[in-house]
Amino acid sequence: MYGEWLERVRQQGPLVHNITNYVAMQFAANTLLAAGASPVMAHAAEEVEEMAALAGALVLNIGTLEPAWVEAMVIAQASAAHHGVPVVLDPVGVGATRYRTEVATRLLATHPPLVVRGNAAEVSVLAGGAGVVRGVDAASGGLPVAEAGALARRLSGVVAATGPVDIVTDGHKTARIENGDPWLSRVTATGCSLSALVGAFVAVAHREEGENGDTLMAVTAALVCFEVAAEQARGAARGPGTFHPALLDALFHLNPADVDAAARVSWI
Amino acid sequence: MYGEWLERVRQQGPLVHNITNYVAMQFAANTLLAAGASPVMAHAAEEVEEMAALAGALVLNIGTLEPAWVEAMVIAQASAAHHGVPVVLDPVGVGATRYRTEVATRLLATHPPLVVRGNAAEVSVLAGGAGVVRGVDAASGGLPVAEAGALARRLSGVVAATGPVDIVTDGHKTARIENGDPWLSRVTATGCSLSALVGAFVAVAHREEGENGDTLMAVTAALVCFEVAAEQARGAARGPGTFHPALLDALFHLNPADVDAAARVSWI
Amino acid sequence: MYGEWLERVRQQGPLVHNITNYVAMQFAANTLLAAGASPVMAHAAEEVEEMAALAGALVLNIGTLEPAWVEAMVIAQASAAHHGVPVVLDPVGVGATRYRTEVATRLLATHPPLVVRGNAAEVSVLAGGAGVVRGVDAASGGLPVAEAGALARRLSGVVAATGPVDIVTDGHKTARIENGDPWLSRVTATGCSLSALVGAFVAVAHREEGENGDTLMAVTAALVCFEVAAEQARGAARGPGTFHPALLDALFHLNPADVDAAARVSWI
Repeated sequence: MYGEWLERVRQQGPLVHNITNYVAMQFAANTLLAAGASPVMAHAAEEVEEMAALAGALVLNIGTLEPAWVEAMVIAQASAAHHGVPVVLDPVGVGATRYRTEVATRLLATHPPLVVRGNAAEVSVLAGGAGVVRGVDAASGGLPVAEAGALARRLSGVVAATGPVDIVTDGHKTARIENGDPWLSRVTATGCSLSALVGAFVAVAHREEGENGDTLMAVTAALVCFEVAAEQARGAARGPGTFHPALLDALFHLNPADVDAAARVSWI
Repeated sequence: MYGEWLERVRQQGPLVHNITNYVAMQFAANTLLAAGASPVMAHAAEEVEEMAALAGALVLNIGTLEPAWVEAMVIAQASAAHHGVPVVLDPVGVGATRYRTEVATRLLATHPPLVVRGNAAEVSVLAGGAGVVRGVDAASGGLPVAEAGALARRLSGVVAATGPVDIVTDGHKTARIENGDPWLSRVTATGCSLSALVGAFVAVAHREEGENGDTLMAVTAALVCFEVAAEQARGAARGPGTFHPALLDALFHLNPADVDAAARVSWI
Repeated sequence: MYGEWLERVRQQGPLVHNITNYVAMQFAANTLLAAGASPVMAHAAEEVEEMAALAGALVLNIGTLEPAWVEAMVIAQASAAHHGVPVVLDPVGVGATRYRTEVATRLLATHPPLVVRGNAAEVSVLAGGAGVVRGVDAASGGLPVAEAGALARRLSGVVAATGPVDIVTDGHKTARIENGDPWLSRVTATGCSLSALVGAFVAVAHREEGENGDTLMAVTAALVCFEVAAEQARGAARGPGTFHPALLDALFHLNPADVDAAARVSWI
């Protein structure tokens, strides 16, 4: 169910074009390689139009912003829209500074991404920026279900808010995922690398089924695979330092059947 | 004595704003996370004023310079000064090119950092640039005690010169530290990551005690903790490649009492 | 024969100036350190002229291009030419976008690099850009022997095309290398790090023998050492994540006699 998506990524090896932050680049590229996808990093305005057109998915991440990179993101986004390439946005730190909020808002506006993947606070801020009241849904154990749903409907896409418990929603159906490991938050760029992996899974859904692809399932499967790999990695690690390479090992060897057996997903 | 500082970092989880080099970003972020601090990397002129104001400490590192980054450092430094945020400067490679020397000199001039952390040669060059005669203090086994002291007095701050033996001085009292491991010099960005960690420790001193915080002890404790972790990591590593994740593991698990037991610090 | 080159790198510790991509910077620096060389990364137009002049070799890598970096590469290349510093070019992704092809062509034109290191496709594209017919030499098992040879003669230098089987050629003699491990392609930046290592080996040849240095043997030896280290690393790794630090460990401990015993090189 979830594991089969990983199998499809391995078979198809989608090219994922990343315009991402400096901290995450290496780990995100290694995450994609471990999962059988093919990463490319390119950020020059001179080439992103072409590169995005070649890709199976485009992943935009605002972790270490600057104006020239933002312009490249906008160009790449337009190219992706023109060529039917799905876009994943990771709004790192939105709300922390006005600049990040402005940029994230701009990236949502003209050519809305198909998928947004952030932590709960980032998703809440981003949804709130669209006029939705902030605050978390107490009935869902503090998860931003209402905000994520509203944002997903606005994008006609899928929003994933990750944390100790994750939600993935298209605004109609919502998955609640309880896999993962606390050490994920003690290694930098795990969230950014997950966003890159989401790109690979969405590329597969889009390539096989076009705009009717099951983006909700693809994103959910990406999160489940990454987090089950993290659970397996924990046993091979002695701390967050060795957890990092162990996570890549686990993702590389991950057995689809084991993913389904370990998945703790409930649909709301 | 030294280990308790690590405990305070873990309890307070200070936000450390880094404007650092591309090579060190990932390792520095992971070092801060392993120690229980919270890293943020941001370098755009558009947001560093706000980001520095939010932080517990600002760390500037000139390892991979370019003009736009230098302007952002200057803006961040002014914001830090305005908001009472302590600044750590790592003058990577100062003296190697005129540009690095000019930039480091500029960063020392307007809003002097509270702490400088470099290797012995960098500290000597930086102190010499201020008119102090270069050359090492033979009586101290080749350590730049006189230069570091003069620079510390000029900054009304603390200077740490690291190497096989480190010195940390405020220009009046000087700690001599003999912890560490030779493999630290066979992994890139260990010095830069240590500077980031110094930021976390100084943030704690500053937050608790304001400008009267014991910066000298905070910086000394950061060096001792990092180097005792390196000593522990050595046993879990087979070479510099596995030493890197083992160092993060060791820092994560580091026991404050073990730090004090292993510390080889003499005060001059 | 090949292992002795590593010994010379360890003894001389050449400074290698890299203008390389964001993804590869950390791994390339660690690769150079593990081999006993000394890495420096610097990309500002303000300092690359001086830095390249100080170096034993200059390595240019176009993996994450942008105009300011290209200008710095051109300046550094001119400085290297002026000071007799050998240059290694890694044309990452040439052919993928027009911009990469233009830049790679430009870097070949004014001050031709002494060495080009790319994968087979990149070498073919680069050679084809010079007017040579594309396509692979079927008689050589799909290797771009003719293209690499033509490019090497044009540069009066050495071209290395790496993959499951590598070739290294000066256009007259060609080495065919069958060392390595498939996991090298499942970790990002291994090719870029190999190019950096080639810089260290070429620096040694150039320093000892000037322009008559045996560049062909130096490049061949760099590839053999890196790939024998990869073979050794495989046994210490559980997947591509742990393979990465294990490769650095293996390179650090690599025994020159073991290199020669494990080398699978045939000369054509």
